Amino acid sequence: MPAFLDAILRRFIQRGRLTVRWPDGRITTYAGPAGSGPEAAVEFCTARAVRRLTLNPLLAAGECYMDGTLRPAGCSIYAVLEVLSLNRAAGPAAQPVIALHDVLHRLLRRLVQFNPTGRARRNVAHHYDLNGRLYSLFLDRDRQYSCAYFPTGRETLEEAQAAKKRHIAAKLVLDRPGLSVLDIGCGWGGLALSLARDHGAVVTGITLSTEQLAEARARAAAEGLAERVRFELIDYRAIEQRFDRIVSVGMFEHVGVNHFAAFFQTLRRCLAPDGVALLHAIGRSDGPGSTNPWIAKYIFPGGYSPALSEVLPALERAPLIATDIEILRLHYAETLRHWRRRFAANRDAIAALYDERFCRMFEFYLAGSELAFRYEGNMVFQIQIARDQAAVPLTRDYMVEAEHRAARMTANA
Amino acid sequence: MPAFLDAILRRFIQRGRLTVRWPDGRITTYAGPAGSGPEAAVEFCTARAVRRLTLNPLLAAGECYMDGTLRPAGCSIYAVLEVLSLNRAAGPAAQPVIALHDVLHRLLRRLVQFNPTGRARRNVAHHYDLNGRLYSLFLDRDRQYSCAYFPTGRETLEEAQAAKKRHIAAKLVLDRPGLSVLDIGCGWGGLALSLARDHGAVVTGITLSTEQLAEARARAAAEGLAERVRFELIDYRAIEQRFDRIVSVGMFEHVGVNHFAAFFQTLRRCLAPDGVALLHAIGRSDGPGSTNPWIAKYIFPGGYSPALSEVLPALERAPLIATDIEILRLHYAETLRHWRRRFAANRDAIAALYDERFCRMFEFYLAGSELAFRYEGNMVFQIQIARDQAAVPLTRDYMVEAEHRAARMTANA
Repeated sequence: MPAFLDAILRRFIQRGRLTVRWPDGRITTYAGPAGSGPEAAVEFCTARAVRRLTLNPLLAAGECYMDGTLRPAGCSIYAVLEVLSLNRAAGPAAQPVIALHDVLHRLLRRLVQFNPTGRARRNVAHHYDLNGRLYSLFLDRDRQYSCAYFPTGRETLEEAQAAKKRHIAAKLVLDRPGLSVLDIGCGWGGLALSLARDHGAVVTGITLSTEQLAEARARAAAEGLAERVRFELIDYRAIEQRFDRIVSVGMFEHVGVNHFAAFFQTLRRCLAPDGVALLHAIGRSDGPGSTNPWIAKYIFPGGYSPALSEVLPALERAPLIATDIEILRLHYAETLRHWRRRFAANRDAIAALYDERFCRMFEFYLAGSELAFRYEGNMVFQIQIARDQAAVPLTRDYMVEAEHRAARMTANA
Repeated sequence: MPAFLDAILRRFIQRGRLTVRWPDGRITTYAGPAGSGPEAAVEFCTARAVRRLTLNPLLAAGECYMDGTLRPAGCSIYAVLEVLSLNRAAGPAAQPVIALHDVLHRLLRRLVQFNPTGRARRNVAHHYDLNGRLYSLFLDRDRQYSCAYFPTGRETLEEAQAAKKRHIAAKLVLDRPGLSVLDIGCGWGGLALSLARDHGAVVTGITLSTEQLAEARARAAAEGLAERVRFELIDYRAIEQRFDRIVSVGMFEHVGVNHFAAFFQTLRRCLAPDGVALLHAIGRSDGPGSTNPWIAKYIFPGGYSPALSEVLPALERAPLIATDIEILRLHYAETLRHWRRRFAANRDAIAALYDERFCRMFEFYLAGSELAFRYEGNMVFQIQIARDQAAVPLTRDYMVEAEHRAARMTANA
């Protein structure tokens, strides 16, 4: 039984219970007080997996799970990661090895988040150019690949994604038809189409994913909205036109700390003097950090979810004005839970599209992300932005009113 | 006619019109295009006033106005400052001397904002221990000496200050009676009394002003609330008890950048694990800056209104979680307009309490502050804070509902 990893786990697991089966067949249980958290069991199939996990736990846990050399025993990978996540959230004192790796990754973060236009396109292709059918097998029908909004917590995923689009539209102050809107990182076009269809906007959606572009254009044509919604394959830094409104949902995570200044300068340059913008992105409540190295390698190369303290200096210097900041917390955990369940329900079809290793990679990603929102301080911020403080109404009441009005119209339609 | 100041004004005034009468009787008019802004006229009574204004405009303008050596000519000091404020907001390029002073004051800001407990108490006494009757002559009946909240923009000052208290109470999630609340910087006790009377809380209000303490205690006794609302003369750093809720309105401006870490560590230490706090303070939209030197010398020694980018690092490191950030913009300009008008209406009574120079000092302060909110990027932020992300509901809807419920109860009472 590997003494070093054993010693680490003994210090690390202070809540719940983790049972480990070592390659030689021996079994050890690490546990906090009874009732202090969930239980899970895991099996190391090779000594090499033990060594890799000892040396670089943040990267190797996912890799060994993908390879099948680290296996949940009688439970899901979510259950295993939940015990680890809960204990990680309990404090860095108990986790010297992870703390060491955190320091290392923070030192390297400016390097790995270097996203000039060429690399940005490759980084996007890595994830978003996956077979389009994959996304239809775990996302909602509109393919909203970002945090949904659960007004009561009891919504279906479809309802919560529709509520998210209404929530965002309300903050864009779409108070007259014909407003021009730029959607930076438009995905498969769902939000852009909704802003045109339901709010009378004239939308330009931009993406760096050729798969998303093709699908978005096909949808605009099929809905007869091609005149009102244009989709383009272009980097945000290359936009030269000016818009009444700008929205960006789930794209800022790909910008990287080196490029925050360029992002907000672009926003200022492309926003009308009386314009309103909304930035919706994943952030972290607990201050600056670094991207989990497994996520950076397998899921989102170049990606980073910043703390608000990292975002606001670049926003203020642009100069732009933050006119409202909402922090959505458990909404993304709920969204990811829905995705994880749909993924599990369609696992055979996805394994046929790709392979077993891909499925395990995706499961690890969805489970780990959900837990990051439940226990490790991840959140979603929505920053409403203007150039002129008078661009938005005096109080936030209009947001609630616009949102409720749109919800009633949907219900009546 | 002093050539240097003339050259500066020629570059500086690009909007509106400023007519200057020099000590030798000559008159010069500085103006942007016709219709580009308001008009005002000012008279220099002495050559010394011209020299002082040339050398240190940010400090000398207020001092010369107080001394009567710089006089509005046929208009109010507000009108004069409005022309200057509008042009200042137009951009730093036109104002080399002011830019130089800004740099100087930014270099010195950590020094002038050094507020250990002894100095903090003297700084507070400087302003808040002024004759209590003064404040009754320009504030609302409840003596709310902070930004009011104007849901429609048509409220009276009394209504808007009542709405502000409801707005804050709603964000404190006072969802059951008997919650303990700490009010840091309680002023004359209005908010603390309202939280006890209208929301069933048990409140501890703290201040460093002996004048405020005496008045707040007298009000609690008169209302029969002395059992439920305690007022103490104590520095926030000395609080040791733990509270379900913490609120601080208009006090953070006196903390100073050197002490943000101590402030948020105190908040964390004094907040129950499932507690909620609300921080309401003046900020600046345009990034870190420095306190106007005239304000620092005559009104708020040790004071500073920070950018959000300066506040959030200390909050995140505490560690605390920002669960919502509202940015109130023109509300304080409207509040100050009400105060300025009431001050003018009671000017004779105030001059009898103090003297003419004091009146001019206060007028300069109220006018300059109002303009800072209208044109120079000042704002008020309300940061809702928790230790646990689950301490507040999933969406912000409860805030609107609680606020409307409280408003209906007030209307029915």
